[in-house]
Amino acid sequence: MKLFIPGPVTVRQDVLNEMAKQMIGHRTKDASKLQKDITEKMQKIFGTKNQVLLSTSSGSGLMEGAIRSCTLKRAACFAIGDFGEKWYKMAINNNTPADLFKSELGDITTPEQVDEVLKTGKYDLITVTGNETTTGIANPIKEIGEIVKKYDDVIFCVDYVSSAGGVKIDADDFGVDIAITSSQKSLGLPPGLAFCTFSPKAEDRAKKVENRGSYFDLLNLKSFIDKKDNQYPTTPALSLMYAANFQLDYILNEQTLEKRIQNHKDMANLVRTWAKKHFDLFATEEKYASNTVTCIKNTKNIDVANLIKELKKQDILLGNGYGDLKDKTFRIAHMADFNIDDMQDLLNRIDNILGF
Amino acid sequence: MKLFIPGPVTVRQDVLNEMAKQMIGHRTKDASKLQKDITEKMQKIFGTKNQVLLSTSSGSGLMEGAIRSCTLKRAACFAIGDFGEKWYKMAINNNTPADLFKSELGDITTPEQVDEVLKTGKYDLITVTGNETTTGIANPIKEIGEIVKKYDDVIFCVDYVSSAGGVKIDADDFGVDIAITSSQKSLGLPPGLAFCTFSPKAEDRAKKVENRGSYFDLLNLKSFIDKKDNQYPTTPALSLMYAANFQLDYILNEQTLEKRIQNHKDMANLVRTWAKKHFDLFATEEKYASNTVTCIKNTKNIDVANLIKELKKQDILLGNGYGDLKDKTFRIAHMADFNIDDMQDLLNRIDNILGF
Repeated sequence: MKLFIPGPVTVRQDVLNEMAKQMIGHRTKDASKLQKDITEKMQKIFGTKNQVLLSTSSGSGLMEGAIRSCTLKRAACFAIGDFGEKWYKMAINNNTPADLFKSELGDITTPEQVDEVLKTGKYDLITVTGNETTTGIANPIKEIGEIVKKYDDVIFCVDYVSSAGGVKIDADDFGVDIAITSSQKSLGLPPGLAFCTFSPKAEDRAKKVENRGSYFDLLNLKSFIDKKDNQYPTTPALSLMYAANFQLDYILNEQTLEKRIQNHKDMANLVRTWAKKHFDLFATEEKYASNTVTCIKNTKNIDVANLIKELKKQDILLGNGYGDLKDKTFRIAHMADFNIDDMQDLLNRIDNILGF
Repeated sequence: MKLFIPGPVTVRQDVLNEMAKQMIGHRTKDASKLQKDITEKMQKIFGTKNQVLLSTSSGSGLMEGAIRSCTLKRAACFAIGDFGEKWYKMAINNNTPADLFKSELGDITTPEQVDEVLKTGKYDLITVTGNETTTGIANPIKEIGEIVKKYDDVIFCVDYVSSAGGVKIDADDFGVDIAITSSQKSLGLPPGLAFCTFSPKAEDRAKKVENRGSYFDLLNLKSFIDKKDNQYPTTPALSLMYAANFQLDYILNEQTLEKRIQNHKDMANLVRTWAKKHFDLFATEEKYASNTVTCIKNTKNIDVANLIKELKKQDILLGNGYGDLKDKTFRIAHMADFNIDDMQDLLNRIDNILGF
């Protein structure tokens, strides 16, 4: 089964094979080296010199940890779809004071909108979706970052769960304090690992926050790494780390990150061109359409469930619309280790099924 | 490297190979089936008819989730070593009201002690360590359970992280509401998955508790499973689930749980006999010595670090004492898929190094 859903993605067999390696002790020098290697490589993916933290969990775990560990006053959660709203709900579930600022579905979070909210002086942390999987939109993080930089006391958290490894991220340059991703999307790994950057500013903030919990207490993760030579408070998913270390080597050295990013652009362009020909993009402005997943407006009112069913017969898994967008849209992920030929093949199959 | 540390354990190659299988969609019928299969098999390991919850995390995550999700009034945390104390710290880190009741290292938590504490009427949840990895002690959970049953409103949580799969557990019969374990110990799996039972009584309690968080909110996990045909709110570690499903089949059908438990008893007896001949058991009473890990009192004041170093040259990893017990003890794990020959071979090697 080839997975064209926005994660879990189809993983290269070489990467899967890495997981068949035997366990090592998690309190050994080998474990320290493995963890250090992965964090150094993830620094390149995120474009940061700050510490990268690993978590055995989905990306949601680190999103919860970020907002809970680093909000002292109040968090402003900007949402352009379900995953943005989820971040707000995580805050509420933890008694972390937060407000939600929703954009119309299909729109972005604008730098102006962020400025208006931060001007009130009520907020000392913001969460923004870097890549919204439900609507196929990539927010202008660099431009939003320019605004956030005006506010010294604001921690800037970005959800890059479905795009890190497939798009250019310069977290330090953008002023992102906590950039979060997980393994099973554009990085081309199996699910179960999450990663985030952690700026000294975020670390200082967390020191002032009480009630940070345990497993997702980012300050505790950071302190443990510092004290224990890159080890972690609890036993991490070693097999997934073997795979991550191997795949990151492939991405950074064999493939190169530049080519990987270009491949995502090329695949996105192909799918968007096709989508515009037969349907329409869900994104209000094409320049904000995601390079890892395209959300297609079902302008022809096709039977999406049937399309998915027919593709399944051909051993292909496609994503329907998410939540309220279930029948109004469908989604094609073009992420991780697929290439332009894989995407063209998929589009040809859809053309055949729909009689285009 | 053969791992005689109390987790991660050496994993059977067949099990590791399962992880080299390709991803599936986590919102598919195949995913539902996989999750249902694992939970049904884990019910047999735990001896419960209640729902079993899966978590992509270490066991610590579910320990935190249990105490936070189900304490309404106040939790009593009984500790016979570091892992018992950790549970208390997790409560404090979450602003969950809790008190700590420590036994002397080497001793158990007695049913009388639990009765004294519960008699006060201050507590509506207790945490007890089923198997304390740092001291090699198994608490009398059945006997403690008899006491807890007298108190209708008390939720009984037990940490079986390092023993489930290697010892007989009858959670329902013992009156355990939340029994917790993780993959990388006696179950013989790689780290990254955790499992817990969740009784209707615990579920009712959680419904009354506010501020349960998100990722480890046990009620949310249970509700999602109920509503979404055994699926989970976030993407689980599929590769580890393939391995778990395969290994649980092996344990329950090929090996049989009875034989696995007997094998743990046999290995434990061999190691304890050796330990008593040359040193002494750390456990005050041998009948409470764990069947999955033996903590040996360093009565001969041997150089433990050197023993570990010499064994490492022979590609064997042994555990030193934990925390304050570092030089006073050393630990031999006899869990998961080792057998009596593996243990005899290890003891022979130690004899040679120490000149016994």
